[in-house]
Amino acid sequence: MSIFDNEDEFYMQQALREARTARDEEEVPIGAVIVCDGQIVARAHNNTERLHDVTAHAEMVAFTAAANTLGTKYLPNCTLYVTVEPCPMCAGAAGWMQIGRIVYGAGDPKKGFEKLGHGMLHPKTVVDNGVMQEECSELMKEFFKKKR
Amino acid sequence: MSIFDNEDEFYMQQALREARTARDEEEVPIGAVIVCDGQIVARAHNNTERLHDVTAHAEMVAFTAAANTLGTKYLPNCTLYVTVEPCPMCAGAAGWMQIGRIVYGAGDPKKGFEKLGHGMLHPKTVVDNGVMQEECSELMKEFFKKKR
Repeated sequence: MSIFDNEDEFYMQQALREARTARDEEEVPIGAVIVCDGQIVARAHNNTERLHDVTAHAEMVAFTAAANTLGTKYLPNCTLYVTVEPCPMCAGAAGWMQIGRIVYGAGDPKKGFEKLGHGMLHPKTVVDNGVMQEECSELMKEFFKKKR
Repeated sequence: MSIFDNEDEFYMQQALREARTARDEEEVPIGAVIVCDGQIVARAHNNTERLHDVTAHAEMVAFTAAANTLGTKYLPNCTLYVTVEPCPMCAGAAGWMQIGRIVYGAGDPKKGFEKLGHGMLHPKTVVDNGVMQEECSELMKEFFKKKR
């Protein structure tokens, strides 16, 4: 039995859909959704090529969209589902947003935030990982294999 | 004699002007300018209240503006002048932008990136601090004194 419940897998599937959209647009295939009280309040994927902005990560776009949707500044009752471990910029943004929980699929030992610790997060933020990590990681591997 | 040259003080004065504009708009008084080859290519101040977006820090706004102005994705020949030590989110964004140099005025031991090290920056980025730190810090102190 998985340590993750079906809900986490369901929402990570939604994040994976976003990641596949990114791939189809030749963006780095990372997707994110933000969930609040069982509702998806934001969906986003990496948009750095289209926006010509190296900071337009899935998470950054999703945070702003979720705050707009909910009409709030902070997201303490929300969960961020993202296919790949957030980078320090996105983790720092999650900190400002006071997000309740972060669930990521595949780890990113090189560019991920975890190697710097959880100091940039809000102290109450819970972090889980590994949900559908094979699928999340496979998308990234395929993308970068093609690029070479 | 100061360890900083007049150029650094000149540009920090410009960042301070932005910080004062922020203060006058009841935003946290932090300002930034980005300089490339002796030209200011972006000016910005903290905009979190107006944009209702807790990630709209002076640096984030300035990075995107500088990239737009220059028509480039990366800023290796640019210097960011910012009145207060960047937070991890902004330092992470600086890393993605591959900014050449960061000069900040006042340190921010609580919310600044330095306590987590320079791991989120590009390895070539040079960091200097303390330029006009009294003025930069005084603006922050006054602002938060009034808020209480």
